[in-house]
Order: sequence, then C-alpha cells, then structure tokens
Amino acid sequence: MAEIDPSAVEQVATAARAAREASRRLALLSRADKDAALHAMADALEAAAPDVVAANAEDLARGRDAGMAQGLLDRLALDERRVHGVAQALRDVAALPDPVGEVVRGSTLANGLQIRQVRVPMGVVGMVYEARPNVTVDAAGLGLKSGNAVILRGGSAAESTNRALVEVMRATLEARGLPADAVTLLEGGRDAVRALLTARGLVDLIIPRGGAGLIQTVVTESTVPVIETGVGNVHVYVDAAADLDKALAITVNAKTHRPSVCNAAETLLVHEAVAADFLPKVLAELAGAGVALHTDAAAGAAAETAGVPHTDATDADWDTEYLALEMAVRVVPDLDAAMEHIRAHGSGHTEAIVTEDRAAARRFTAEVDAAAVMVNASTRFTDGGEFGFGAEIGISTQKLHARGPMALPELTTTKWIVEGDGQVRA
Amino acid sequence: MAEIDPSAVEQVATAARAAREASRRLALLSRADKDAALHAMADALEAAAPDVVAANAEDLARGRDAGMAQGLLDRLALDERRVHGVAQALRDVAALPDPVGEVVRGSTLANGLQIRQVRVPMGVVGMVYEARPNVTVDAAGLGLKSGNAVILRGGSAAESTNRALVEVMRATLEARGLPADAVTLLEGGRDAVRALLTARGLVDLIIPRGGAGLIQTVVTESTVPVIETGVGNVHVYVDAAADLDKALAITVNAKTHRPSVCNAAETLLVHEAVAADFLPKVLAELAGAGVALHTDAAAGAAAETAGVPHTDATDADWDTEYLALEMAVRVVPDLDAAMEHIRAHGSGHTEAIVTEDRAAARRFTAEVDAAAVMVNASTRFTDGGEFGFGAEIGISTQKLHARGPMALPELTTTKWIVEGDGQVRA
Repeated sequence: MAEIDPSAVEQVATAARAAREASRRLALLSRADKDAALHAMADALEAAAPDVVAANAEDLARGRDAGMAQGLLDRLALDERRVHGVAQALRDVAALPDPVGEVVRGSTLANGLQIRQVRVPMGVVGMVYEARPNVTVDAAGLGLKSGNAVILRGGSAAESTNRALVEVMRATLEARGLPADAVTLLEGGRDAVRALLTARGLVDLIIPRGGAGLIQTVVTESTVPVIETGVGNVHVYVDAAADLDKALAITVNAKTHRPSVCNAAETLLVHEAVAADFLPKVLAELAGAGVALHTDAAAGAAAETAGVPHTDATDADWDTEYLALEMAVRVVPDLDAAMEHIRAHGSGHTEAIVTEDRAAARRFTAEVDAAAVMVNASTRFTDGGEFGFGAEIGISTQKLHARGPMALPELTTTKWIVEGDGQVRA
Repeated sequence: MAEIDPSAVEQVATAARAAREASRRLALLSRADKDAALHAMADALEAAAPDVVAANAEDLARGRDAGMAQGLLDRLALDERRVHGVAQALRDVAALPDPVGEVVRGSTLANGLQIRQVRVPMGVVGMVYEARPNVTVDAAGLGLKSGNAVILRGGSAAESTNRALVEVMRATLEARGLPADAVTLLEGGRDAVRALLTARGLVDLIIPRGGAGLIQTVVTESTVPVIETGVGNVHVYVDAAADLDKALAITVNAKTHRPSVCNAAETLLVHEAVAADFLPKVLAELAGAGVALHTDAAAGAAAETAGVPHTDATDADWDTEYLALEMAVRVVPDLDAAMEHIRAHGSGHTEAIVTEDRAAARRFTAEVDAAAVMVNASTRFTDGGEFGFGAEIGISTQKLHARGPMALPELTTTKWIVEGDGQVRA
C-alpha cells in the first residue's frame, strides 16, 4: 500500500489528541449535564434549520450536476421538517438511560476485596459513513450520551451539510463550557480516512456505515479495532410446516417494506412440500409489488404456471444483496438444505424461518449462525428502534464486542474497580 | 509486506475449514458431553504423562543447545507432576458453568415479539503464544467448554511438547465420537502464522499471548479481529493520605511476588508529602528483596540518605515493563501529577492507589483509564483466578469486547433469537 501523506497523518493525530482531551472530560460528565447539552444541541439545530437547509442545497446542486441517482439525492436531502426530525432524535437520546456507570457484575471475594465491572466510555470513536447527513447528528448524540468523543467522516456528497450540522453542535457545546472537540468533522481526501483508520492508540474504535465496498475498505485497512456493520444477505425460509398466510405476509413485508436497507430479505427459500401451494401466491404478490424475481428451476416452473415474469437465477444471485425490489427464489428439499444454503450464502445478519413445527424452529435458531434469527416474524425487525433500544448506531455483523443492533451500551467498554483495605497476594 | 507463501495460506485455510466444521458440532454439544470430554482428556493426559515428559525433554535439550535462558527453560519444563497439574486444570474447567445458552437480556415487545440475546460460541479461535506448554491445554479446554474450535500456534521452542499434548487431546475427542478438529496445532514457519492472522472469514478471533513484540506483530498484521493481551506497565501510587504500612506491603507485594508477570508493578509514584517518611522504608525493603531501583532526583536523594543502592531513572525507565526485580520510583507533587504520569506512561492494564482519602480514591478510580483500577490492594489481583472466574485465557488490555481478565464468557458472542406468530412491520 502507498504511504499515507504525512500531513494527513499529522492532521488526524492532532484532531484525535484534541478528541482524547475532550473525551476525558466527557467521561466524567453527569447524566444531567449530558442530557441538557443534547437538548441544547437539538434547539440550536432547529434554530439553525434555514442555514442547514441552505448548506444542504449546495450539496444537492453539486450532486445533481454530478449526475447523482435520485435515490441518493433523496437520502441526502434535508428540508426544515427533516432538520426538526434530526433534532428530535437528540432529545430521544437524552431520554435514554445513561450507560456510563452501570455495574455489569461484581462480588466480594473471599479475601474481602470488593470488585465490580463498571461501564465506561470507549474514549474516541471514529465513524466512517456515506451520504445520509442524519448519521452525523445521531453519531454525535449517541457519542455524547455515552461519554465518547466522535470523529466523523461523512461522504463528500454531504460535505456542506455535515459542516453546517457539526458547526452548530460544536458551538452549542462550547457555549455551555463543554469541549467542542467532543464532535469533530474530519475533512480532507482519501489519505485523511486512511490516517484515521491507522491512528491506533489515538482512536479506540472505528464504526463504518455504508455499502459493502466502504465496509470492506475499512475492515481491510484499519489497524484500529473495527465493528463491521450492515451487509445483509438475508433469507426467509418457508418450512414444510409453515402457516402459508403468515409466510406470505412475512415474505412480502421482508422484501418490500423498505428494500434499500440491510434487514430487507434478498432470497426466499421454500420447502418443496409447500412449493406448489405457496409459490404461485407469493410470486404473484411479489411481482405485483414490483419485485423482479430470480428463480431456480423449480421456482421458475411455478412462476411459469402462474404466469409471473421471472428470470433464471445465476450463481451470483444467491450472493447478491440487491437492496432493491429484486428477490432470488429457490426450492429446497428440506430444512438441512435450507440451512446449508444460508451457511453458504448468508452474511450473518438476519435469517428467518416460517414454521409451526417446534422442532424445526429449535433447530433453525440453534444452528443458523447470524446476529438475529427469527421465527415467524419479518426480518425487518432487526433494528435498534424495534428492539426497544431507543436508538441505533449500526447493526454489527461481526462477533466481537457487539452483534446485531448497536446502541448506547455497545459504545462503552468496562473497567474493573477493586477496593480493598491493604490486601496482598500470598 | 512480502506476499504470504500460497502453500501456507492453503494449509491454514484447510485447517480453518476443518475447525469450522468441528465448531458447528461443538456449538450444539450439551454441557454434560463437553464436561465428560474434558475429564476424558484430563485422564488421557495423565496416562500419557511419560510420553509428554519425553517429548518435553527433546524441547529442553534443543533449548539448552540453543543457549536458552534458565528462566525460559523453567517455563518450558514439564515433569509428571506438572502434567498432572495441567490435566487438573481441564477438570477445573469442566466444573465451571457453561457460558453457551446464557440469556444475557430479553423482553417481549409491544407487538408480542419475544426477543432474547443468547450467548453462543465464537466459532474458530486462533491462539498465538510463546513457550509455556500449559497454555496449549488451557486454551483447548476453555475452547471446548465454550463450544469453540481452537487453532493453536505455540512457540517453536515447545514444538515437541505441544505436538504430544495435542495428539493426546485429539485422540481422546475422536475416541468419544467428537470432532478431533476441535483442537488443531498449527505447524510451519512464519508464513503459517501470517496466513492465520489474515484468514478473515475463516477464523473469528485471534488471541495473542506473550511479550510485547509478539503482541505488536499480531495486532499489526492481523485482519482477523484480535484481542490484545497482557502488556502491563503497572503503577502503584502512594497518596498523601496513604496508610504507609499498607502502602509498604502493597508496593513490595506488587513488585516482588511474581515479577515476571503482567500484573506486577513497574513504577512506584509517591506523593511528596509522605516521601520523607515512606521512601527510606520502602526503598530499603525493595532493595533488600533484590529490586534494582531507578530513581528520580527526589527519590534518589532519599535512597542516598537511607544508604540504598540506586541508579538515576532515564526517560525510558518510565515506559519500561521490566518483568524483573527492577522498579522505577518517582516523587510527585499531587494526585493530578500521579494521574498525568499514568496517562503518559501506563499501558491500561492495572493501576493502584493507596489512600485513606475517599475523595482521592473516587477521583483515581473515575479518571484513570485502565482495565483494572485498585484502591488499597496489590496489583497482583488482576487475574481470572483471583477474580473468581475459575480460569483465564489472558488479560485484555484493549477496550473492544473484553477488558481485563478473560475466561469463558469472553470466548463467546451472542445471537438474538426473535420469536413471533406472524408479525410484520407496519
């Protein structure tokens, strides 16, 4: 790999040291102080909404000139209503319990030592993400509440918007006597990102949010610990013992409710015993909702009979996260074949079985290796908000530290506090 | 970096795939089956003790020929009594609760979905470590109990011993109808290690155990998630309000009880208000225990007055993990200076304050950023066994996933199981 531009390394080191200083003060703030700051930031963002929208208009104009797709422009766009929504999210974070100080476990040892494991902030958390500017505010809010300083690297497409948002938040912190470096926007080119990813010892954690390419880059290049998020090649398996009405509702919801997100289903697996009954209905309904179908031979034959348009699935289809109104469909001989397919092609995000058979459900939940395994529910429920966390900073698809939806506790680490009265080891 | 020998990559990939297959079976074993296997392995190791000792004699002879230091030869050596000790450790692991299946949290959502977060094995865990062959058996035992397959890379100095130990354990597993690939010894040169460290997707976690050089290599080269362990530049701070008898006992214990391990103290910081009282006593006692003292000007003057031999501390001393009967000593003007010194030089392992002042203790435990922070206790207590975990696979000095002593729960990840009766998102 080419060497990183030394000036970028220096820029990131300076920012990270300032963030570290800030994090030392954030770690000691009371919940009341943090919540008051979150409310003040929300008020300030609402007051500055016209400026934010104006900055966003610059980004949108640049995007349009560059031929950005309409879907991306939609995700980038902020109007005053959306700015109020973003601000409200900060107030929602203020309402959540403070994870810092939670005693995770503890005991008194035989020698009288009192030990307890207590949640403490990570320190400095780097976020690398793509276009959506609401992530900028969400990450700053969750970071502040969990006592962490954040270094934010948003997509260049949202540059002006992110700058406006971060400026408001920093000014608010400063006005309250809190460290502005609790929130830093990392500017600069690709070398700035590479410098962030290799700032081991200065940055405690990197969380990437975005497409598979972004995540792959971060995971490969980073020497700072990373929590991998969000790639979801998600399956719904309709078992021989499925209630087919539930299966129909779940499949359609998992595919079409919001196809662009990671917990949307990409492949439907159907047990051959119910294929003749189930496929004509589900394929017709999916096609009716605008879903392009990629079918194996058996599913293709069913589509043919039902007069539903479809194309033959290629090997690549089983590994594709469409993030769009497309779905691969395969008929499997049994539960083992379904689980074998998921093992071979799943990304460890969310996998669902539809069945009334207790034994099948038990095997599926025990043997399928994923962040979330569902029985008779839409895969769309893998979400911090739905799980009742009140917020979400991403969905981890790795096994270390956090797995599944991440919120405030996942932004903390722990410290053992040991209190004695002179104990020594014999 | 030079490309890794493709045959080493292939060797590791083959081993990791076999370990993955094994891990799928291990994940579903009952506690009773795992415990019975651990007991059988212990019995088999005891029965094979003469063979293990003979293999160890080869390693020792090779070590002596190569001029290995006596301390390392001692750590490498296994006699029949030590083999029985190693076997007994497997029985101790069998007696511990099974972490797999533990419900970490859970709730019923407003829509009726029942969600629970359940501990499950990591999958395949790689261990890279140095001479001590007991780590081979400990890691295999903790791996099996937590449902993980382990790939072990011990030091080449213990090659014959490790081969003998792993052979016995694999044969025992096989004889019980369990997958031998639950325990794999990785042989081959440096490229085999590099291939292991970059087997992302095949290996779920790497735990290095050994000196700073080994850990640095693993952390830098690995693309598989790593838990950094064990480097301990540990401080004891004797506050103005310290009980000096406790301070004396704690300092001497922390330094001399077992100087070669990571939780031994390396630097003594003394508040200037008690320096005149405390230093003559502690320096004399340390020197009497054979500790070489590296003193700053004030501590040096006290040593001079007390007639205790000492050398001037250099800047490098404050950053040195001696792992030997050596200690750096510095006089500080106040608690803030002590914490600033620790911030600048500590490795985030264990830090101790000796004080009867509640406010000082509260500040120290809140502000010092380390895996373990102690009040009035020897730093030697940072240990899985001492904390009551019943075992220890290492002491994490990083913030992600685990911090401090790691045992069985730290070798697991979690999975969300979501059970519904047809719920979809509105």
